[in-house]
Amino acid sequence: MNSNSSHKAAQRLPREITRELAALAVHSRYLALPDVVQRETARAFLNWVGCVLGGCHDPVVEIAVAAAAEAGGSPQASVIGHRLKTDMASAAFVNCLSSSILAFDDTHLATVTHPTGPVAAALFAYAEKHPISGEEFANALALGIEIECRMSNVLLMPPAQSNLGFFITGLTGPIGAAAAVARLMKLDEDRMTWAIGLAAAQASGFRSTHGSMAGGFVPAHAARCGVSAAMLASKGFTCSDATLEGPKGFVEVFSVGADLNHAVEGFGRHFELLSNAYKPYPCGIVIHPAIDACLEIAGQLEEGEVPAAVALRVNPLTLSLTDRPSPKTPLEAQISLYHWAAACFVKRSAGLAQMRQDCIEDPAMVAMRARISAVPDPALARDEAIAQVVLKNGTSLRVHVAHARGSIDRPMTDADLDDKFAAQADGVLSGRERDRLLGLCRNVAALRDVGHDIAAALSLQ
Amino acid sequence: MNSNSSHKAAQRLPREITRELAALAVHSRYLALPDVVQRETARAFLNWVGCVLGGCHDPVVEIAVAAAAEAGGSPQASVIGHRLKTDMASAAFVNCLSSSILAFDDTHLATVTHPTGPVAAALFAYAEKHPISGEEFANALALGIEIECRMSNVLLMPPAQSNLGFFITGLTGPIGAAAAVARLMKLDEDRMTWAIGLAAAQASGFRSTHGSMAGGFVPAHAARCGVSAAMLASKGFTCSDATLEGPKGFVEVFSVGADLNHAVEGFGRHFELLSNAYKPYPCGIVIHPAIDACLEIAGQLEEGEVPAAVALRVNPLTLSLTDRPSPKTPLEAQISLYHWAAACFVKRSAGLAQMRQDCIEDPAMVAMRARISAVPDPALARDEAIAQVVLKNGTSLRVHVAHARGSIDRPMTDADLDDKFAAQADGVLSGRERDRLLGLCRNVAALRDVGHDIAAALSLQ
Repeated sequence: MNSNSSHKAAQRLPREITRELAALAVHSRYLALPDVVQRETARAFLNWVGCVLGGCHDPVVEIAVAAAAEAGGSPQASVIGHRLKTDMASAAFVNCLSSSILAFDDTHLATVTHPTGPVAAALFAYAEKHPISGEEFANALALGIEIECRMSNVLLMPPAQSNLGFFITGLTGPIGAAAAVARLMKLDEDRMTWAIGLAAAQASGFRSTHGSMAGGFVPAHAARCGVSAAMLASKGFTCSDATLEGPKGFVEVFSVGADLNHAVEGFGRHFELLSNAYKPYPCGIVIHPAIDACLEIAGQLEEGEVPAAVALRVNPLTLSLTDRPSPKTPLEAQISLYHWAAACFVKRSAGLAQMRQDCIEDPAMVAMRARISAVPDPALARDEAIAQVVLKNGTSLRVHVAHARGSIDRPMTDADLDDKFAAQADGVLSGRERDRLLGLCRNVAALRDVGHDIAAALSLQ
Repeated sequence: MNSNSSHKAAQRLPREITRELAALAVHSRYLALPDVVQRETARAFLNWVGCVLGGCHDPVVEIAVAAAAEAGGSPQASVIGHRLKTDMASAAFVNCLSSSILAFDDTHLATVTHPTGPVAAALFAYAEKHPISGEEFANALALGIEIECRMSNVLLMPPAQSNLGFFITGLTGPIGAAAAVARLMKLDEDRMTWAIGLAAAQASGFRSTHGSMAGGFVPAHAARCGVSAAMLASKGFTCSDATLEGPKGFVEVFSVGADLNHAVEGFGRHFELLSNAYKPYPCGIVIHPAIDACLEIAGQLEEGEVPAAVALRVNPLTLSLTDRPSPKTPLEAQISLYHWAAACFVKRSAGLAQMRQDCIEDPAMVAMRARISAVPDPALARDEAIAQVVLKNGTSLRVHVAHARGSIDRPMTDADLDDKFAAQADGVLSGRERDRLLGLCRNVAALRDVGHDIAAALSLQ
């Protein structure tokens, strides 16, 4: 009989996930990653660098750059797009702000985490100060994203009861960033445990700040906190051993009924990075299927023709996050379902130009937004939407998008990502500089010294 | 009939507390503070400076100083006790770490917030870089503490359902610190609103990190975040208008059923600062009534005599936070009820010397801790405890402490605070330097330039 051991299994103690994750992180190696994960890591990095270029001259970033310049900081790492070097944590903050501010960064759709920003910004800052090979860098990037997304799963996936108020990237971003930097530092298991714990102790952010500059601030702060946590841990600053899973710990305060197995089960075999999506449109990803539907219908209309009425059916989360009928600023427009649906008909496009103030205030856009209605439909997936349009002549058109462009089932191709990169580099780099940088990003794992090579291509050295 | 207006009153919308607090902060003035509040503000500052001196050479702080030195930072503000100047946010971080790390800082007992650290550290850093009069400084300190404690009340006081896992100082400290610094900056109401919002967006920390270095890290991080929030807001970095009370906002994510009136009702007439307590013992404040009881019994014993058994009855929160029978390190001992009760009998004292490693490992202490038991008693207040002791000859002694020393009903006198200050300054300042600094702190509101005057007395300039 084996009743005793099965009894034990049923009663097993909560998993020691802080230590387990630390051990997995310490032993992670690039060559152990499957080819598909290696490729996806490079795509995530390429998308991130493009987003930094796209956002680095946004007025929000200019403010952060001025603050960073005033605070000083040893010239350890570059603020991309600006003639400023500062300490690693501050550089990570600004570069992640750049990549986040246009809402063009990637999304782990299951948890609406934007995983790459905090991790890549933290790593790039560290890699500029220290010689880090492409394989080390790519391994740490894949690792940080994986830990971040898995901790998001712990907080949000069944059986956990999620609180949609928390800004998940702000909660789990510091952990992923800290683990990634700590891996580059080659910290031992104790120090890796402390780095993860100190990062978790800085987890912060909630969604009422969306629609203001603080929407980009929270991921940027996550990047800074990740660097700081790893730096302190590397010098022997301790944290408790069970920061994540312990009583009164990270998981307990931010979730109810969470399953800790999401953190570690199948680690190294199953990769959340493969469920990470890149955005074709610079706005909340839950708006994307509606954009696809509206663009498809708009393509069937006469030039200049706009509908009399548009009725959207979307996943309930879409309305929960983007129900803003009258956005006033680009930051509000980013998360307005109505704005982007209107842009599809009035502008026949959903790109960076449609996020500008003049587009938001265009009377034709204002009028069109007012003719759009939306209802939540729990039967629709997050990457699914239905648009029903009535034209002025009474004709009715209907399009059902089963999977949005850029979703896991209909991913952005490498060529799509290159085009997105080019559009964002426009005005920041020359065509030759852009192509050179694009080549380095595609092959990041092959670089000899990531910080040096990328910074040089950005003309930062 | 007036039924319409009373109907309206019953249905009134949630208070716009972010904007209301911002308006109150912008218009706050030192001379509008009652005398008793002005006096208590100086006592809070004096206690804080003493705690910084007591903690500034702790090994934990040495690590943080090394990290700050490496990150660089413009020499804007002093790291107290060290030959280092760095940027304001980093200086605020280290100085608050110094004041927090020995668990000797003040406590708003109703919410177990440690209010002065984040606010004073942020203000002092700002005041070193800018000429700030004593009245401006003291007003901002009183303001920051008030906002911090009131937001703690919102999260925790009835009818709110509190989550004791969150580290409340980490949640509300950034808000108090940001509002205080923003007041020194003379920000307008919009920017004050953003400063408060950006600070709230950085609220973080939970109690599973207690007993490690991260217990001091969380308040220190709060100080840093407060400075950063005010700096960014002063440059026009926006946040939403309803960060605190809005849907998916600060109050909603960190509390359930909160009453927003706690934030603003009676502001300027009722002061939470007057419910702030200073610790006579360097450990968790909920342990203090038990220490008083044990010291009183120990005073009745023969020299060298220790009890056969000690039974403690304490408020349930005491056990929830300090039920650590076998602490291994000073940071664990800080929050071990058993350690301090044992010290009262074995060492006949509960001071800084009883927090040292040699005391923790002393076999007599180990043996004594094992003879102590504790039970929670909901009938006892947080500043109340009963100790029942059985001596080796069978005699039984019992002491009931109705109000712990240092509690609101039995406050530390000015002389007590001076003695505490002197004990902490020992080894850092000469007697003459200490007395000079003590005099400046007592009269902080009368100083011409707080940063300059205090820094000079600390031999920092």
